[in-house]
Amino acid sequence: MSSAHEYAHAHAARFEQQLNDLLRIPSVSTLPEHAADVQRAAQWLAEDMRRIGLQNVQLPQQSGYLPLVYGEWLGAGEDAPTVLSYCHYDVQPAEMADGWESNPFEPVEREGKVYARGAVDSKSHVIAQLKAVESLLAAGDCPVNLKLLFEGEEESGSDHIFAYVAQHGAALRADAIVVSDGSLPAPDQPVLVYGLRGIISMELTVTGPQRDLHSGHYGGNVHNPIQALAEMIAQLHDANGTVTVPGFYEDVRAVSPEEHALLNANLAQAEQEWRKLTGAPQPWGEAEYTLLERSSARPTLEINGIAGGFYGQGFKTVLPAKATAKISCRLVPDQDPQRIFEQVRDYLAQIAPPTVTIELQLLESGAPGVLFERDSAAMRAAEVAYTRSWGKAPLFTREGGSIPVASSFQQQLDGEIVLMSFGYKGGGAHGPNEYVILDMFHKGIATAITFCQELAATHRP
Amino acid sequence: MSSAHEYAHAHAARFEQQLNDLLRIPSVSTLPEHAADVQRAAQWLAEDMRRIGLQNVQLPQQSGYLPLVYGEWLGAGEDAPTVLSYCHYDVQPAEMADGWESNPFEPVEREGKVYARGAVDSKSHVIAQLKAVESLLAAGDCPVNLKLLFEGEEESGSDHIFAYVAQHGAALRADAIVVSDGSLPAPDQPVLVYGLRGIISMELTVTGPQRDLHSGHYGGNVHNPIQALAEMIAQLHDANGTVTVPGFYEDVRAVSPEEHALLNANLAQAEQEWRKLTGAPQPWGEAEYTLLERSSARPTLEINGIAGGFYGQGFKTVLPAKATAKISCRLVPDQDPQRIFEQVRDYLAQIAPPTVTIELQLLESGAPGVLFERDSAAMRAAEVAYTRSWGKAPLFTREGGSIPVASSFQQQLDGEIVLMSFGYKGGGAHGPNEYVILDMFHKGIATAITFCQELAATHRP
Repeated sequence: MSSAHEYAHAHAARFEQQLNDLLRIPSVSTLPEHAADVQRAAQWLAEDMRRIGLQNVQLPQQSGYLPLVYGEWLGAGEDAPTVLSYCHYDVQPAEMADGWESNPFEPVEREGKVYARGAVDSKSHVIAQLKAVESLLAAGDCPVNLKLLFEGEEESGSDHIFAYVAQHGAALRADAIVVSDGSLPAPDQPVLVYGLRGIISMELTVTGPQRDLHSGHYGGNVHNPIQALAEMIAQLHDANGTVTVPGFYEDVRAVSPEEHALLNANLAQAEQEWRKLTGAPQPWGEAEYTLLERSSARPTLEINGIAGGFYGQGFKTVLPAKATAKISCRLVPDQDPQRIFEQVRDYLAQIAPPTVTIELQLLESGAPGVLFERDSAAMRAAEVAYTRSWGKAPLFTREGGSIPVASSFQQQLDGEIVLMSFGYKGGGAHGPNEYVILDMFHKGIATAITFCQELAATHRP
Repeated sequence: MSSAHEYAHAHAARFEQQLNDLLRIPSVSTLPEHAADVQRAAQWLAEDMRRIGLQNVQLPQQSGYLPLVYGEWLGAGEDAPTVLSYCHYDVQPAEMADGWESNPFEPVEREGKVYARGAVDSKSHVIAQLKAVESLLAAGDCPVNLKLLFEGEEESGSDHIFAYVAQHGAALRADAIVVSDGSLPAPDQPVLVYGLRGIISMELTVTGPQRDLHSGHYGGNVHNPIQALAEMIAQLHDANGTVTVPGFYEDVRAVSPEEHALLNANLAQAEQEWRKLTGAPQPWGEAEYTLLERSSARPTLEINGIAGGFYGQGFKTVLPAKATAKISCRLVPDQDPQRIFEQVRDYLAQIAPPTVTIELQLLESGAPGVLFERDSAAMRAAEVAYTRSWGKAPLFTREGGSIPVASSFQQQLDGEIVLMSFGYKGGGAHGPNEYVILDMFHKGIATAITFCQELAATHRP
């Protein structure tokens, strides 16, 4: 055990306390009323960066609301490799009414898990990377140059980081880029994700009458916008679960036999996990692809929210003026987000009945799907780090989620990208009672330390 | 002009003030937090009944929450006819966020209209009937015995009045039963509604996964409950607007040629009004029926509300656990509400995909549609009263709305029923910026006075 690992072991309890401190800050980036909390979390991180010995610590605020936190340590010298680590510290909204058993911003520990919004997505990654750096520096023998970049608007569309990365390519130069986010399919099974889906989101508004009407007076001769919206949504997939938008699959890469084998190495366990974690009656989706392919190598069109009319307690005899749906598409290489938006827009215009008017608004400008080199030096170092820390070799897989910044890094920087997750997929990201398994948090710190050591040991300048 | 009419004319300003006083009480019966306001409105009405000289004034509270208000005056003697007048003083919910231009519970007068929740549906009817009675009694020559019955839970399903009417048939005995609710298709066009649709309401919940999921992780292999709900809703009507529930039209009476002529006497004006009042791009519904038939003589299946996932500002990458829709059917004679509920339930169970579970809950137990005798003494007295007060003979028509208590009166009492509306259909019942036209309110008082006088004049004991 290196002295960095010993340091991490000795300070494990304090690392957990710091995780709790960060979880208490409700850094919800999708709600304007939490902007000050996001800034507070940024300040908290900058202070800890300074405390552990990072230099050039800054909150680059050049363009308004830009809650980035940057810090670096370049003491390993020019011949040593440089690691850029990215995580996001902002979170999705959370309210008790969503089904939380305890306050989402007051972390509670039960049976080795800490429950709080952001526990698994992604504050445990932030603290794990930060504490790995602290351990490497405290041990006095850090073998790599370090750059840490933490983002506070990943959940709200990453409006600023893309321009920041584009403008600061030289300063962010690194041999390896660690994007610490995502999840592991089982607590004891590390994975190296070599592909991510992209995302684009939009809002569809269907308007019928100019104002809410009495359903007794007009029911039967006004096309109800909720019904019209439902009729349109029902036409977005066929009975097989295939998206019906013309051209939607045009640019999707076929799954090769080699990749089919790789992606489905763990299919039986994944199907079991699916049943356990979803509790849904049975799987759904394109019959010609496996469960794992459908959620990683295939694009989707999802209805993330719908609202119209009266949906409170009780009943109201209203025929509403409008109904809205929030729609997102998960994208795979080489689908172009803008082109997909236009295809969806055109198809909706085509299927909209003449009895209503529709409007489709782009919510988030989107990110394309990405694939990373599976046998880079960084990927190999990560493989060693996971194997040592978890006692089990990682699986190579593609993930269904989206990390738009990974696309940006791939396009703008030339380092080797590794996605390094320490969180369990069952940890309830974006839902109620989100949690992190503390054992995985500590394994994550160890993995991040070993990754740097291994990268340095195999580095050829 | 009779002395009763003179009294009403002299006290017109105070009658308007009293209307405003009642409008200020937010007697929303569909929301439990307003129960005390409903009781307060009941007390207000009971006090005014006592003040104007009604006897036996009571709030019958025999079974818990039963906000009925009853008062009578039997001084016309046994040979005079007895009139039972019914109105409801409870209202639908209203919030500024729904698009109100002023506080819905602070009446505002603009250009001869008073804007407030309940203005047209139906507090102006309550005050008009009450002030007609006050005028008849104050003039000292009231020719009819009077019974007033005001209800405070019409908007929330009329849970208690049916049992009350069934148990108090003798006390409520009357020659004519005036149900003062509904609306007129144009401010200058009185109508006598001889038919009403019934209603039954329910809530459909579609559950997929046990909890909200991340749409990146599970999008593509979990059937999204919003999508499943939309797919089910889309199967409830065919492309013609016909309800597809098997058996739904089985008991519906055909529109006879005579009734077709009666119902469509005013079709051209109704189509113009439709365009003006709805603002919808074009009419919708069963092509083989006219606009007016579709909203009166034909049953409907309407989605009154829908909710699922995240529908706040912004975006959330959630694949929700469930989605719900509030559904109601407007019924015509001789459809049986319970049978319709069972038909909808069975059809939904049949079309529900195996990837989700569904639950259909009955919200309000429902009322059948009704038709009233078109040439009864009461209907003729109403025809005279409308013609004198409005300067125009009323049209005979069927309405699309539901007044469940009218069904109950028809089944339990043997008086001749008249629906007597003084409100404009364009008054925004159940929607934002509901209003009453004050000129119609005063014509309503005159109509109610003349109705009693005419009924007495033509009465043969």
